[in-house]
Amino acid sequence: MAERRPIITLLTDFGEADYFVAAMKGAIYCLNRDVEIIDLTHQITPHDVFSGAFNLLCCYREFPKWTIHVAVVDPGVGSSRRPIFVMTDEYYFIGPDNGIFSYIYQRENINRVVHLTESHYFRAEVSNTFHGRDVFAPIAAYVAKQVDWTKMGAEISDYVKFNLPTPAVVSAKQLRGHVIQVDRFGNIITNITSAELPPERAAQGMRLRIGKHEAARCLKNFSEAANNELFAYFGSAGFLELAVARQNAARLVEARRGMEIEIALP
Amino acid sequence: MAERRPIITLLTDFGEADYFVAAMKGAIYCLNRDVEIIDLTHQITPHDVFSGAFNLLCCYREFPKWTIHVAVVDPGVGSSRRPIFVMTDEYYFIGPDNGIFSYIYQRENINRVVHLTESHYFRAEVSNTFHGRDVFAPIAAYVAKQVDWTKMGAEISDYVKFNLPTPAVVSAKQLRGHVIQVDRFGNIITNITSAELPPERAAQGMRLRIGKHEAARCLKNFSEAANNELFAYFGSAGFLELAVARQNAARLVEARRGMEIEIALP
Amino acid sequence: MAERRPIITLLTDFGEADYFVAAMKGAIYCLNRDVEIIDLTHQITPHDVFSGAFNLLCCYREFPKWTIHVAVVDPGVGSSRRPIFVMTDEYYFIGPDNGIFSYIYQRENINRVVHLTESHYFRAEVSNTFHGRDVFAPIAAYVAKQVDWTKMGAEISDYVKFNLPTPAVVSAKQLRGHVIQVDRFGNIITNITSAELPPERAAQGMRLRIGKHEAARCLKNFSEAANNELFAYFGSAGFLELAVARQNAARLVEARRGMEIEIALP
Repeated sequence: MAERRPIITLLTDFGEADYFVAAMKGAIYCLNRDVEIIDLTHQITPHDVFSGAFNLLCCYREFPKWTIHVAVVDPGVGSSRRPIFVMTDEYYFIGPDNGIFSYIYQRENINRVVHLTESHYFRAEVSNTFHGRDVFAPIAAYVAKQVDWTKMGAEISDYVKFNLPTPAVVSAKQLRGHVIQVDRFGNIITNITSAELPPERAAQGMRLRIGKHEAARCLKNFSEAANNELFAYFGSAGFLELAVARQNAARLVEARRGMEIEIALP
Repeated sequence: MAERRPIITLLTDFGEADYFVAAMKGAIYCLNRDVEIIDLTHQITPHDVFSGAFNLLCCYREFPKWTIHVAVVDPGVGSSRRPIFVMTDEYYFIGPDNGIFSYIYQRENINRVVHLTESHYFRAEVSNTFHGRDVFAPIAAYVAKQVDWTKMGAEISDYVKFNLPTPAVVSAKQLRGHVIQVDRFGNIITNITSAELPPERAAQGMRLRIGKHEAARCLKNFSEAANNELFAYFGSAGFLELAVARQNAARLVEARRGMEIEIALP
Repeated sequence: MAERRPIITLLTDFGEADYFVAAMKGAIYCLNRDVEIIDLTHQITPHDVFSGAFNLLCCYREFPKWTIHVAVVDPGVGSSRRPIFVMTDEYYFIGPDNGIFSYIYQRENINRVVHLTESHYFRAEVSNTFHGRDVFAPIAAYVAKQVDWTKMGAEISDYVKFNLPTPAVVSAKQLRGHVIQVDRFGNIITNITSAELPPERAAQGMRLRIGKHEAARCLKNFSEAANNELFAYFGSAGFLELAVARQNAARLVEARRGMEIEIALP
């Protein structure tokens, strides 16, 4: 079997209206033509590092082993925040050391985090405002070429993790969590997972309060829902979500990230 | 000549802000690295199956023979609606059996429609809300590997077609149709084709009424139009369209899909 | 080393909601499967040729030598405006002859501009409204196959250049320029470059007036800025820009393209 072209994914808050994403791709191809570049998303809200971390979490494992995930939501670009390269047992991650890989640190076995310092592996000219093009893209191109990490910088252990929003188990019958994301369909993603609320138990009965609204059932899919019913379900990324079938639930209940939710079990 | 990598196109209503499209691509690459994945569009209005069908219609034939078109506008995901695989004389189509391939059934010779049931060809874990990733993407990866369709499910003949909006030929001098799409430029696409209105005849004189507005000419191109003139022309997908040069016609005449139009011929 | 697949980039004002971009890609692949297609951007404001020219300028050089850049912002499609093919010492450009390559003419050594006339290299059927699919995409596919340019048309020298907005050096201590773009982050890009204002000099002190607002410093990066401070910096495309860290500067100062700015030096 022929060697496969390594996959590089790109997640940014650059949008798609400007030249930024294309510049990153050009920078990669200038150094390494034998890669497959996939857009993860470029529509992270500007500077919203948490949202970047969350979207990366939701799909990094869908990619083949040794995919190189580049994540650039980087409000501190040009400051002393460090560019890093993270190696787990199965994936590579490249981006700023600002917490964007917090979920990765929580879920994966971290073999090594490298502070990228060797400018030989950067763009010839490095700007102070666009490390996506000047630092992270070139590094991804070299990682895809299997350049030895020891040439790129030194290992660090004090990399930045932010506090991930964890649900509170108030009692055997009560959970408290938060909204962590609203998706394109207006579905509301909470930080509750099957670890806190086993799906079998939720199916037996639960009430979830969000603001002045309540979801009275945890369903398997959207077609089980009654008209206009706000209901809970376990979404495709493993989190408990809230929806109204064929409607925008977030708009209906005025959900925003950070909003508290409360679950009562019988 | 080396074997060409099969092309897989993706059309969805997932948008590009979330991880959904990337998850589909990852799922494909996990099973088959020797494919070319092309985004058809991901900005179909959520749940708007007709708009998905229309955009697919407008470009599926622009792709090489044996391209695999995956179309996922799927409000019934997780219900009993069937996942299907459609084979025509020249293309493959994969998606939910909800009418999204209605134009294909109308225009192509349909060799076979297969109800996809063999979960061996699905993701190891199939969610109830994201068959784009869990069913359709893996199937596309296997179709690109030329897995025999008989292994994936059984043939069906009662697949869902919706009534495509057809124009009414009221008399030899009168046609009635509808707006079926508004594009990015505000150009208004009607369901009138050259079958109902031969371009030569339209060029000789026609008046088209839409709401309170009228287009008095059918032109060849935009530069023939007068300033602020609402005019008709045959668009690049074969439908009669309405435009105002360098302006947003849909906004000017408040066009929406479903709006009636009436054509008078001399 | 194996032959590399040529790179084709696409810049348009087609947006991503309709089938237009996909149709261009399909048209390329029908003629040439051995290419890498990269989206530059498709979100140029409809008909805004200058913005297309500007975004192309900002990243064409990030791509490998002999990349084929296709740029289609084409309000005159179907009229007598010419389709052209531009060859510089290192890149190819394909698009309408409407000034979209003005910055390229200014910055590159132009070896040849060809008026594309040989319809053998166009789509079998050429519409009057979609030359992106019917003319420019097929030409790109053939250029990538190294078809001899003399077969496609004849050389011209009267190609269209528009007046690029140049700054005025009013005195040794005063510069006048304009806003030429606002990016996704609300950063304001001016037409001042290091040619008019050497970065070392700007760093020693400058005041920039835009409308009723003033930037009192030229900084190296965003983290040097005070809270809510409007400041200047040299951006990643070589132009002087204005920003407010973690805020949308354009919204704060109501910046629009064409707005005058004035710089006073000590």
